[in-house]
Amino acid sequence: MRETRAINELRERAGKAGKSLVLGIGDDCAVFERDSKRFSLWCQDMIVEDTHFRRGDGYKNIGRKSVAVNISDIAAMGGVPEYISVSIGLPENASVAVFRKIYDGILEICGEYGIALAGGDTVRSGKMVIDVSMTGTVFKRQLMRRSGAKSGDLVFVTGPVRNGKTEHLSFRPRFDESRFLAENYTPSAMIDTSDGIAPDIRRLCEESGTGCRLYEQAIPLSSGLDAVEALYYGESFELLFTMSRRKAERLFTDKRLRAGCPFFIIGEMTGEKKGLKLIRAAGRVENLKAEGYRHFG
Amino acid sequence: MRETRAINELRERAGKAGKSLVLGIGDDCAVFERDSKRFSLWCQDMIVEDTHFRRGDGYKNIGRKSVAVNISDIAAMGGVPEYISVSIGLPENASVAVFRKIYDGILEICGEYGIALAGGDTVRSGKMVIDVSMTGTVFKRQLMRRSGAKSGDLVFVTGPVRNGKTEHLSFRPRFDESRFLAENYTPSAMIDTSDGIAPDIRRLCEESGTGCRLYEQAIPLSSGLDAVEALYYGESFELLFTMSRRKAERLFTDKRLRAGCPFFIIGEMTGEKKGLKLIRAAGRVENLKAEGYRHFG
Repeated sequence: MRETRAINELRERAGKAGKSLVLGIGDDCAVFERDSKRFSLWCQDMIVEDTHFRRGDGYKNIGRKSVAVNISDIAAMGGVPEYISVSIGLPENASVAVFRKIYDGILEICGEYGIALAGGDTVRSGKMVIDVSMTGTVFKRQLMRRSGAKSGDLVFVTGPVRNGKTEHLSFRPRFDESRFLAENYTPSAMIDTSDGIAPDIRRLCEESGTGCRLYEQAIPLSSGLDAVEALYYGESFELLFTMSRRKAERLFTDKRLRAGCPFFIIGEMTGEKKGLKLIRAAGRVENLKAEGYRHFG
Repeated sequence: MRETRAINELRERAGKAGKSLVLGIGDDCAVFERDSKRFSLWCQDMIVEDTHFRRGDGYKNIGRKSVAVNISDIAAMGGVPEYISVSIGLPENASVAVFRKIYDGILEICGEYGIALAGGDTVRSGKMVIDVSMTGTVFKRQLMRRSGAKSGDLVFVTGPVRNGKTEHLSFRPRFDESRFLAENYTPSAMIDTSDGIAPDIRRLCEESGTGCRLYEQAIPLSSGLDAVEALYYGESFELLFTMSRRKAERLFTDKRLRAGCPFFIIGEMTGEKKGLKLIRAAGRVENLKAEGYRHFG
């Protein structure tokens, strides 16, 4: 299925946001009016056996991941998570011990981030599936969307792209980085790289009405990955964001980051609509293809 | 898996409701403080291919059902639905047309009940799975929980129990009935019969600290069902509620119900903890077993 096409069509059909819904389909979270200073956030990410994990990955790890991917979505909007509701599908022969281990992982990470479990559903399913729905809150002045990037802004990523194949279960959502940015710099746009840098920068460009140029040699790599893999590996859950050069200068001289800046410039936004370019190491300019890593292949 | 045991254990582990969470695991919806007059409601029900539907049931019908089961949960608390977020798992080879038909059903029923689509997720999954998370609102004085029934209250069900095998896709959630009751009578306790009358009256009794006596001959039947099937068929989504005899007298002389009362008395609550009894047609008193209909069997 051509997911982008289907989602764009659905967005049209769902109609304009209304009543208290400020922002519906098309960002990492839906955004609702809350009070004079804050919005409420709502996101939902489903993970499925053999697509996002294998049963041998460990039930506790799988439970953790189901929550972590949603924390990443809340962080990508500059928010703080509050509550989750969890639907779990388990094979009929699954034991209570399996259920308990999944919730060991869920409740552990909830404890780390101050999230409370509000409810959910447990059903019978041939393959395991966990769908977490998460609410959060964000100060209005700290909300970061996909749509605010401007031509000339620099493009950043948080830390060397993690290897989605080996680190997709154990990753730490970039929550602290999001707090630091939201409170001190409010990037012009932000998204998490759940599908990979290339497909996700495309989304950010589409929403912002800009193009971009990414520098292959600037992409920070974790061991065992090359730059092309780093562009297309999904399940890495870094934050990808943009910021004016003026703010970027301030960021790179920020004394609080003396221990080492966890943010890496990988390119810049351009005024060229639909112009996604990759500047290769040899200086060749290529069109940046947006296809993401297809999970387990 | 012994679901009841696992859920009860999880409820302990999740800890006390706190902050704005008034009521967590253990009812049809989680309940949150909203303002001086209203609570917010949050529920989430997952439906899985070959457990809750078959692919041949029609994609639009399946989409409708995924929302209807959640409306039933909101109605069971006396509330009105507001927003949904939808996670869908589809086989890799599913076409955009399939996605569109599922959303035809989702958006159709959303339109009928004034619900707005806020967001969600679409992922790859061997078997189809749809998980809808729904928010709603309820006036504080109209909230109906599972826990308010008292010894001596009468037990009601809305309409003849539907045949879960044939009507599980096309059912209309008992929303109008819930509105009528919430606005005029506020039953002492309410639950929807998603698992069947017997397992769900047990939940209501457990939460209320009561027992009950159900009369086999009083259970209204749709054609093709006997009373025992009606007790154990899940996927029927009637409302099961309790009310004092005084209120019940008023209900049965209510002029607004002249066209025929859609509520049927099927028994009464007793003070006997863990005493669930079924009075058979011949007058024999049996213990009411709580096992529900195991969906497709």
